[in-house]
Amino acid sequence: MFVAFEGPEGGGKSTALRHLAERWQSRFPEVPLLCSREPGAGELGARIREILLHGTAMPARSELFLFLADRSAHVTQILKPHLAAGGAVFCDRYMDSTFVYQAIARGLDEGFVRTANDFAVEGLLPDLTLLFDLPVEVGLGRIKDKDRLDNEPIAFHQKVREGFLRLAAENPSRYVVIDASQSPEMILEACWAAIESRRA
Amino acid sequence: MFVAFEGPEGGGKSTALRHLAERWQSRFPEVPLLCSREPGAGELGARIREILLHGTAMPARSELFLFLADRSAHVTQILKPHLAAGGAVFCDRYMDSTFVYQAIARGLDEGFVRTANDFAVEGLLPDLTLLFDLPVEVGLGRIKDKDRLDNEPIAFHQKVREGFLRLAAENPSRYVVIDASQSPEMILEACWAAIESRRA
Repeated sequence: MFVAFEGPEGGGKSTALRHLAERWQSRFPEVPLLCSREPGAGELGARIREILLHGTAMPARSELFLFLADRSAHVTQILKPHLAAGGAVFCDRYMDSTFVYQAIARGLDEGFVRTANDFAVEGLLPDLTLLFDLPVEVGLGRIKDKDRLDNEPIAFHQKVREGFLRLAAENPSRYVVIDASQSPEMILEACWAAIESRRA
Repeated sequence: MFVAFEGPEGGGKSTALRHLAERWQSRFPEVPLLCSREPGAGELGARIREILLHGTAMPARSELFLFLADRSAHVTQILKPHLAAGGAVFCDRYMDSTFVYQAIARGLDEGFVRTANDFAVEGLLPDLTLLFDLPVEVGLGRIKDKDRLDNEPIAFHQKVREGFLRLAAENPSRYVVIDASQSPEMILEACWAAIESRRA
């Protein structure tokens, strides 16, 4: 069971992930849950995350390739071994973030980004992708510590929102769109219902 | 005028590059020469080089994507602006090293590596690629400070040599193969003859 948490910053996906992980651990203690994130898992990931979020100016293509380097190591060294051992994974961002941010929002060639993403994940798709969707202004208003991506103009974030909704429409079997402007309790219940229905 | 210096470690390409740069600067002082290298030019490149040469164990795909991230920034921020301003470039390793090391020697898909390389360089091919070719054992015997790549088994380095020779055969218009087992003087003269013929 591999659940990806996707959506813009400020949508509450990281907080929801923590609460859902607690619930998982109390309901299914026999299935070890790994909570991870991209970029930034493992030793290589930590070094790449530091460059991406607090590094120097770089072209969009370099940004793309750094995310893919992080993802390749994450999949090979961390995610696949844990899933193969019977564990479950909750991951804060995964391949769809790269497609949305680098191709749809930054304008890199969609065909190449799709091919490169496929090459990086080696067949490992999420069983369920929870999309935390909310209006751009609401999401941005909630962010306190702004990193490099959060300082992009509104039009960039609008493209991000539309990009995720497009992927959800194109992949209905693995996507569930969560209305992230609801109360935290309602968000958690909607997420949990989606997770339980996939486990069944 | 963009000259790439390719070949295995121990072939003397970095030393030859320095001597040829001196000669260029005395013969063509009106054409500013940029001596660069991959990986490791610029601020992003320096951080990526450190990870690649002295970092942790990583899968071949991550290694590939790190080289490509370095290359994209190098091309966009450094090489293209210098060439557009009328300068010349001598570059120690470029896209063919990635194809040879990551696809031919490590076994990653050749079609994908080729496509990804093309995406990273955005049309910037060398006018001349000097291949410093020599028997594997001779090259390895010359290396003093062994980094991560130099500790690979002999079969790996044999694939590297054959890979570069294959690229030279496939791209005769931009490749000149230099017999790097010759004396340093003869190597320099062979390189300089190739450079002058391309300038004419």
